Amino acid sequence: MIDFYTYPGPNSRKAQIMLEEAGAEYTVRNVDITRGEQFAPGFLKISPNNKIPAIVDHTPAGPVAVFETAAILLYLAESSGRLLPTEPTARANTMAWLIWGTSSLGGALPQLHHFVDSPEKLPSAIERFTSDCVRMFKVQEKRLSEVEFLAGDYSVADIPSFCSTAGWLQRVKDLSNGALGDTPSTERWLKAVGKRAAVRKVMAG
Amino acid sequence: MIDFYTYPGPNSRKAQIMLEEAGAEYTVRNVDITRGEQFAPGFLKISPNNKIPAIVDHTPAGPVAVFETAAILLYLAESSGRLLPTEPTARANTMAWLIWGTSSLGGALPQLHHFVDSPEKLPSAIERFTSDCVRMFKVQEKRLSEVEFLAGDYSVADIPSFCSTAGWLQRVKDLSNGALGDTPSTERWLKAVGKRAAVRKVMAG
Repeated sequence: MIDFYTYPGPNSRKAQIMLEEAGAEYTVRNVDITRGEQFAPGFLKISPNNKIPAIVDHTPAGPVAVFETAAILLYLAESSGRLLPTEPTARANTMAWLIWGTSSLGGALPQLHHFVDSPEKLPSAIERFTSDCVRMFKVQEKRLSEVEFLAGDYSVADIPSFCSTAGWLQRVKDLSNGALGDTPSTERWLKAVGKRAAVRKVMAG
Repeated sequence: MIDFYTYPGPNSRKAQIMLEEAGAEYTVRNVDITRGEQFAPGFLKISPNNKIPAIVDHTPAGPVAVFETAAILLYLAESSGRLLPTEPTARANTMAWLIWGTSSLGGALPQLHHFVDSPEKLPSAIERFTSDCVRMFKVQEKRLSEVEFLAGDYSVADIPSFCSTAGWLQRVKDLSNGALGDTPSTERWLKAVGKRAAVRKVMAG
């Protein structure tokens, strides 16, 4: 049994999709970040960086706590034996695109979100993060024009980028004034990933 | 033999320290990002996100290309069998602190760098990233007051945070106007990591 510490948002969806893909039994533990519950001492023992999502896997050998979305995804993939190949080239590809999705694309989008929605408008900051997100959505489109999924076959690497792209592709297109053009391969991939039972369940929740 | 695609900077140092820790034989391949060499088609096949560092490991089974700093560190740790435990709790801790260092702390510092050094001064952007870095350096100080290294024993997880902290701790202290106070445990850890032969070699280069 896994305790899943969560609050609605894109990073929680990434972790929950992998919990579903792993076939894990889990209990949802809500951490209300609008009430500061992420700073409670008991939660900081699980997630010292005071962020959701986090998990505690109650294994026969004892509880294993994991924080940071990419680490949770890797832990669940390794412990379930699902969606993370062991063959070196496929594994390296999967790791690289997983980190790209959580850290590069997944790092820039929350900054764009902040500066676009901030009451204080800072055009150069909005432009900085818009152009980086446009660049990365183009990197992703090129990749998906060459392969079916980010690491070749469907893998844990698709999950974070799927959540980011589903939430932000159209908004970045609108912000880009045409700099991010058509993305047919990305749309093909969004449909394919979106058909997975695990993805459908979490995105509908 | 590994080809190490690099240009001077903190992410390259993180990868090179792990190359040294892994005892890898590697050839340095300079990618001059001031001349746009990261956009050369040959390099994009290795590093589709047009960033350094990247590696190509010429294994008996064929070449394995890896991009994204965290993925490179994980690949080298797994392929060398060094600095990444296999026991589930220690491994999960190592993964979590590695990702924290590359993605959370390592994601905010380049933004702070940009906004602090930009000719256009945006006080709210500087404040946003300063306060997040102060928060994270406090998270790290608390952690290092409880354990000797970030994941308990010295591991791949110490490498990215060491590079970030060595470069930025004092500057963030100066920017924080006292909000980031003394960090004795962090300084103890900086000295301990800094004594490693691999670290000394790369930091001196």
